[in-house]
Amino acid sequence: MEKKITVLPGDGIGPEVVTAAVEVLGAIAQKYDHQFHFAYGAIGGVAIDQYQDPLPQNTISLCEESDAILLGAVGGPKWDHNPADLRPEKGLLRIRKHFDLFSNLRPVQAIPSMLKSSPLKEDIVKDVDLLIVRELTGGLYFGERHRTENEALDSLTYTREEIERIVDNAFTLARLRRKKLTSVDKANVLDTSRLWRDIVDEKKAQYPDVEVEHSLVDSTAMKLITAPAEYDVIVTENMFGDILSDEASVITGSLGVLPSASMRADNFGLYEPVHGSAPEIAGKGIANPAATILSAAMMLQYSFGLLEEAKAIEDAVAAVYEKGFFTGDMAPKGVEALSTNDWTEKVLHEIEPAY
Amino acid sequence: MEKKITVLPGDGIGPEVVTAAVEVLGAIAQKYDHQFHFAYGAIGGVAIDQYQDPLPQNTISLCEESDAILLGAVGGPKWDHNPADLRPEKGLLRIRKHFDLFSNLRPVQAIPSMLKSSPLKEDIVKDVDLLIVRELTGGLYFGERHRTENEALDSLTYTREEIERIVDNAFTLARLRRKKLTSVDKANVLDTSRLWRDIVDEKKAQYPDVEVEHSLVDSTAMKLITAPAEYDVIVTENMFGDILSDEASVITGSLGVLPSASMRADNFGLYEPVHGSAPEIAGKGIANPAATILSAAMMLQYSFGLLEEAKAIEDAVAAVYEKGFFTGDMAPKGVEALSTNDWTEKVLHEIEPAY
Ligand SMILES: CC(C)[C@H](C(=O)O)[C@@H](O)C(=O)O
Ligand SMILES: CC(C)[C@H](C(=O)O)[C@@H](O)C(=O)O
Repeated sequence: MEKKITVLPGDGIGPEVVTAAVEVLGAIAQKYDHQFHFAYGAIGGVAIDQYQDPLPQNTISLCEESDAILLGAVGGPKWDHNPADLRPEKGLLRIRKHFDLFSNLRPVQAIPSMLKSSPLKEDIVKDVDLLIVRELTGGLYFGERHRTENEALDSLTYTREEIERIVDNAFTLARLRRKKLTSVDKANVLDTSRLWRDIVDEKKAQYPDVEVEHSLVDSTAMKLITAPAEYDVIVTENMFGDILSDEASVITGSLGVLPSASMRADNFGLYEPVHGSAPEIAGKGIANPAATILSAAMMLQYSFGLLEEAKAIEDAVAAVYEKGFFTGDMAPKGVEALSTNDWTEKVLHEIEPAY
Repeated sequence: MEKKITVLPGDGIGPEVVTAAVEVLGAIAQKYDHQFHFAYGAIGGVAIDQYQDPLPQNTISLCEESDAILLGAVGGPKWDHNPADLRPEKGLLRIRKHFDLFSNLRPVQAIPSMLKSSPLKEDIVKDVDLLIVRELTGGLYFGERHRTENEALDSLTYTREEIERIVDNAFTLARLRRKKLTSVDKANVLDTSRLWRDIVDEKKAQYPDVEVEHSLVDSTAMKLITAPAEYDVIVTENMFGDILSDEASVITGSLGVLPSASMRADNFGLYEPVHGSAPEIAGKGIANPAATILSAAMMLQYSFGLLEEAKAIEDAVAAVYEKGFFTGDMAPKGVEALSTNDWTEKVLHEIEPAY
């Protein structure tokens, strides 16, 4: 298979973790006889510095010519006081909208060797294996807004089409898993939520093998802590998804390992770690590249349909943890932490012992 | 002191827990020589059944003539499929708006004897002592909305006045505590949040003794789990407050004990437990009345300024737990659970040994 991948390292530790993931993709290409062509572009703070634009046109063009995007992270204190349109995360919001990446997938899975670092008790999180499907191009994020000195307005709108496609996507994903779908809304208050709930109910008939439940966003925020193992697939709108997926990301203690995908209907997608740009450790060579490497695995799975190759990466990462190799963020007391490079080499070695 | 209290028992376990709290208020009145007059009204499901209205006019009139409101809980499966205007929680939303109860206070404090039932590890929650101040009469809850078969809209609006009064309220409360205020918003996306953040920054000068930080709602949802003890007072808008306060309510394992207050500028307020109507155990006499009893203590403190009396209730509840008396929801394995009545008698006995 031959594929073009646009790489957007971004800010902070972005370049370091992206380099690691590109190496892993290279090893996969060699082992399984694929050709991955990497082209690099600017996004976020570095793009503001260079082009006065967090998502310059040449980056958009690069992405348009490619089959998938691998992103590091954007943002940092340097740009925190920029006007809204010149902030790093604006690049992220614009790329999502430009490429119609409406479905954000965030799997959270308990990893046995890491349960000690979970803030939750082990018996509550040990069986966690959930997937949050967040609508990513609608709702409050992209509604009309308006502000004066004395009042402000943000509009939360959803159309039937916007809801139908994300709900279909979630049903389809639930089918490939444990066939349980939790649709999250605030239907006791919002009209958008009532439309959302009705559409989920209409869709049920098309997926009779999937068990569906509705859950209010406030009680979901509770249950993600008290009984997270009961969830399989959670689908929700953009803002609720932002909050709940960040909440879910810390329960198993493995935030540094969590990947994400933001997909379009034709399987074009953007892949990035859940964690941020961690400016405080940038450039030190100690960042954990696992989340970005696993995001690359999601790319292979979702955009390229390379299931075996994706699994090879996941297995390699799991094996490295099993063998007791960790970067500094996760190393248990008394265990020496590996650098980003050294840890990545362990992963490469699992994929191909010749490394 | 002579005060009129409107009691709205509501649905499910509401009547049982409210009865307990009224008894405790009676004991306080006797001990400290006050006169509390209780008048009962209907709200929620019972009001729908009796008046086809979740907040009938006679209930509103009762409340208008009183100094504070004590509420049990509303809702239950019986009314789940009613049209939006005939649902029990609509009574709650309307009473908040009618009485301009713009400030919802939800304290969450770790109770040593209950840390075992927390889903979080003990060292993370043992020092938790936070107060969430939620704006309760604005935002998405009360904006214009609109729905057709194919699209829906909810508007999120805030005026300067709405933000200023809740922010002032939060600063004032922070001053009475550890003087740390966390303002939560989504200023990297929403115009309402940017207005909110600007107003918090403007207000700072008036409260130089209070340390202020801004925190995005998504990262707050994480930190409430990873480092909840770092918060003192959290102030946020209506929908974020709904989600975060429910999330916070489960971290210490003491949901059954959490009180809340919904206040107007002149100290008129509505007091209710954080938990819901728990229809599955209604009528069995086993509900935990602690949250409602502690809500009554908040009434004494915030609406009546009776600090000593409020503390007497809090101390009594703490003493009963210290002595190892629990209702079924909290009784450790091997410890016999007390009924609602028996547990309430223990509290009454702490207040006045003659009971
Ligand atoms: C940076 C920010 C705009 C973004 C969002 O809110 O979507 C981030 O929190 C995320 O979840 O990817
Ligand atoms: C019942 C519901 C409308 C209400 C809300 O969302 O405000 C409840 O969740 C609460 O927090 O008091």
